[in-house]
Amino acid sequence: MTQLRPPAPSRRNERSARAITAAALQLCKEVGYPKVTMDAIATRAGASKATIYRWWPSKGALLLDAFLEQTVDAAPFPDTGDVVADLRSQMNAAIASIGGPELWPHYTALIGEAQHHPELAQAIFDRFISPLEQAAADRLRAAQAQGQLDPSRDPHLLIDLMYGALYYSLLLVRKPTDPAYVDALLDTTLHGWITGPAPTGADTRPNSAQ
Amino acid sequence: MTQLRPPAPSRRNERSARAITAAALQLCKEVGYPKVTMDAIATRAGASKATIYRWWPSKGALLLDAFLEQTVDAAPFPDTGDVVADLRSQMNAAIASIGGPELWPHYTALIGEAQHHPELAQAIFDRFISPLEQAAADRLRAAQAQGQLDPSRDPHLLIDLMYGALYYSLLLVRKPTDPAYVDALLDTTLHGWITGPAPTGADTRPNSAQ
Repeated sequence: MTQLRPPAPSRRNERSARAITAAALQLCKEVGYPKVTMDAIATRAGASKATIYRWWPSKGALLLDAFLEQTVDAAPFPDTGDVVADLRSQMNAAIASIGGPELWPHYTALIGEAQHHPELAQAIFDRFISPLEQAAADRLRAAQAQGQLDPSRDPHLLIDLMYGALYYSLLLVRKPTDPAYVDALLDTTLHGWITGPAPTGADTRPNSAQ
Repeated sequence: MTQLRPPAPSRRNERSARAITAAALQLCKEVGYPKVTMDAIATRAGASKATIYRWWPSKGALLLDAFLEQTVDAAPFPDTGDVVADLRSQMNAAIASIGGPELWPHYTALIGEAQHHPELAQAIFDRFISPLEQAAADRLRAAQAQGQLDPSRDPHLLIDLMYGALYYSLLLVRKPTDPAYVDALLDTTLHGWITGPAPTGADTRPNSAQ
């Protein structure tokens, strides 16, 4: 775990580090994750392999950093006071960015690699999945506090259902996850658990237009 | 796709084929999927590498067959007339068998490999995920026909939610998926969509004892 933490900023030159992660991402798009080598990344970035290995212990660690740079604020959780509308816009934004053709192959390659490397799996969880889970849980808890969502439901279980369905569809079933799918998913999950209107009076129906 | 279909039975000796898949599975358990080679499988099974490549075009194809042999009837969908009880017992059986320590590492390795090999991803879908989806959808449609489950819900969306949550928990979050988790998952998803008692009068409450 510790070894997959990003290097301390004081230990590395940020401009060089950015050039290396950018080169890694570009190579992944060109030849696919499995064929990318640390040698090729070094050549493309104009960096020495020794430098790269000083900053990242493995290809997985480097490619996770490259992925995280692209996903910072890719799909934040808004709080307009209408939890259903907010989940809908977050999910559609996440599908368009993280689930899109630029990042999704990179992310699934990391997930694939993580199945053989527990320390990479832990780093993906700690640095990507867990922060998103926390942000989603915070948004659901706010809705519970505002009387919009049944307080008996564990926010993390609702997250497992809604985001689990997205992963299952994108990763295993490879079916379209368009806005109509997102609406049906929210409607089916939250039906019966929505306990009140949005405090602002905004429309909370999952099937309303965005 | 075609190339990952199992060889036609007439083309291979079933006893030799079983020895090869058994050797592959055993080696996976011993050294982990990435370190297993076709050479080692041939040696362990007492078969020639030429035979193995005649029957399976790749390590992924062979290890998918080895996995499928172990999962035949691992988690069938019963029909006792009580859809909630039936989903509960199917899910708990699936978690214990497919999600257990023997098969889960093998399955996640295949999913990982599939992220780089679209033909393996397609074969996993065609030969494992899709048949389970169909069986689950058939069970849900029977419940709709029996007046137990709201007919307005697309069975495949309910499957995405319930089984997506299991995959998300097991594959990405790695949290416990014990019977209490399965009960909460069924209760939260199906709440409001259960429209009638089981025809037999069996208990349909998700939280009832098994």
